[in-house]
Amino acid sequence: MNIEEKIIFSNREYDLLTVGEILIDMISKDFAEDFSSEEYIKNFGGSPANIVINTKRLGLNSRAVSSVGFDGFGDFLVSHLQNEGIDTSLIGRTTCPTSMVVVTRSRGTPVPIFYRGADYEIEYTEELDKAIKNTRIMHFSTWPLSRERSRKVVEKAIKTAKESGTLIGFDPNYHRDLWDKDFDAIGYIKSIIKYVDFIKPSEDDAERLFGKDIPKNQIKKFLELGADVVVMTLGKDGVIVADKNKMVQFNTLATEVQDTTGAGDAFWSGFYTGIIKGRNVEDAVKVGLAASAFKLKYIGAISPMPKYEDLIKEFNV
Amino acid sequence: MNIEEKIIFSNREYDLLTVGEILIDMISKDFAEDFSSEEYIKNFGGSPANIVINTKRLGLNSRAVSSVGFDGFGDFLVSHLQNEGIDTSLIGRTTCPTSMVVVTRSRGTPVPIFYRGADYEIEYTEELDKAIKNTRIMHFSTWPLSRERSRKVVEKAIKTAKESGTLIGFDPNYHRDLWDKDFDAIGYIKSIIKYVDFIKPSEDDAERLFGKDIPKNQIKKFLELGADVVVMTLGKDGVIVADKNKMVQFNTLATEVQDTTGAGDAFWSGFYTGIIKGRNVEDAVKVGLAASAFKLKYIGAISPMPKYEDLIKEFNV
Repeated sequence: MNIEEKIIFSNREYDLLTVGEILIDMISKDFAEDFSSEEYIKNFGGSPANIVINTKRLGLNSRAVSSVGFDGFGDFLVSHLQNEGIDTSLIGRTTCPTSMVVVTRSRGTPVPIFYRGADYEIEYTEELDKAIKNTRIMHFSTWPLSRERSRKVVEKAIKTAKESGTLIGFDPNYHRDLWDKDFDAIGYIKSIIKYVDFIKPSEDDAERLFGKDIPKNQIKKFLELGADVVVMTLGKDGVIVADKNKMVQFNTLATEVQDTTGAGDAFWSGFYTGIIKGRNVEDAVKVGLAASAFKLKYIGAISPMPKYEDLIKEFNV
Repeated sequence: MNIEEKIIFSNREYDLLTVGEILIDMISKDFAEDFSSEEYIKNFGGSPANIVINTKRLGLNSRAVSSVGFDGFGDFLVSHLQNEGIDTSLIGRTTCPTSMVVVTRSRGTPVPIFYRGADYEIEYTEELDKAIKNTRIMHFSTWPLSRERSRKVVEKAIKTAKESGTLIGFDPNYHRDLWDKDFDAIGYIKSIIKYVDFIKPSEDDAERLFGKDIPKNQIKKFLELGADVVVMTLGKDGVIVADKNKMVQFNTLATEVQDTTGAGDAFWSGFYTGIIKGRNVEDAVKVGLAASAFKLKYIGAISPMPKYEDLIKEFNV
């Protein structure tokens, strides 16, 4: 694949299948140093889960593969997705508690506390096998890669996707704290990049994998590892999209920034929607930029994302 | 030991050493069904931790053995104890997240979600060995028994306590969800009762271990398993205290009930303080009743517990 190529999809029931974390984001109400904050707000969370909701609102037929606990938080997350009209039959339930991330907002960089539980208890079922063969794009995050049990499931899912012509998108959002200390997480992440069609690192993601460097050099490293298409998001500096022959930079479309939370997920959502709607990668990136610009106007990880047709009209892309 | 015997302690630096969970209680601000509550309040928690604070305020020299994460919640818990003047040198830090219990208050019985992490990573260090030999009473809860790693530590601690003449109190607060599904938790708990000097079940605790029965029969079951002294708390119906020869019931001293949270911990705290101050078990139970009656007047797990001398004067015990 290259960034000018328009992808012709075969007829499939689903547009997008995300494999990854659905969890509770427990975020302090106030900014506070030293975890002195007393009140926390429970939020629906998990990047793949946000992408499912955003793309559903944009008009895709999306569904999520994940696992939550047999507990009140699991009920809350599943019913939240169902209220968006999303099929939750691929979300398993286990006796582990529903995974949670606690974030105490502070003036510096907040240090999240990760409570892993049900999220990595996904299983490779017959239904999942069918679902991968019946979706146009499969997206996955690093969370399920970080534990052996779910890593095996993702590896099998990648194999099935490859064999059945399902495109693969990968969010290399590596966080050291999620992985076993004695596992070469960075080496592993680098080793699977050759299987993916789209990879969308942020500058931070790239730095965590390769160390500090300028964006163009970082993109070359992803391409050398075998990624077909690299989309690197640069925050206020827009996006660079590249394949092995061409590299193009686009400016941000954002004019108003209320909250950057979830901007990356919104970008992924617009980008995938553009691809599904028949655009080539370069043109789909513009939809990604429109979706993130839309999201940036709202506070919270999820915005009231409009239909695709209204979004591209609003941002003239 | 029997309930009329006055215990003569040798000279030791510490009065009470608790072995068990120190954790975050994340409790919903409002009552809500189906985990629909949005706001949660972060609280200092863990029954043994509350007992340490209460007894310190009553005038004992108390310290806690536990483990918390290298994270903001761990910092919060340790500094909370330090602010009470409690020695925290036996509280270890690990890379696991600080343990947390999430409770969504509802009209029915709230179902807690347990996020186990650092709490069961306690280790049997040389300092712990010295501390057990240098305390008058060692108290433990079921939390550290519920995982193999910390269970071995408690077993070794019990052995050391027995050999060095340290009295042992045990809170049989069994919760199925804390234990591995394939481990005979109830059988295990029953098997260690013979090592303890004081056991204080509530009616719920007894029912979870033995099934439903009247309090006097439940007490006999604890005695038959080898407990020296059984103190069974009955809520508004007071307390029954028993050894193999005698059984006495005391009425509650509570006149005002704002919140029952932490009443059991307050009872333990008053009871231990009475024992340390030279009372026999029957008379120490009265101090336990006074401490729980004091606590019941306040909202929250911890009340502004007065000095022992002021408490016994207020309740005339």
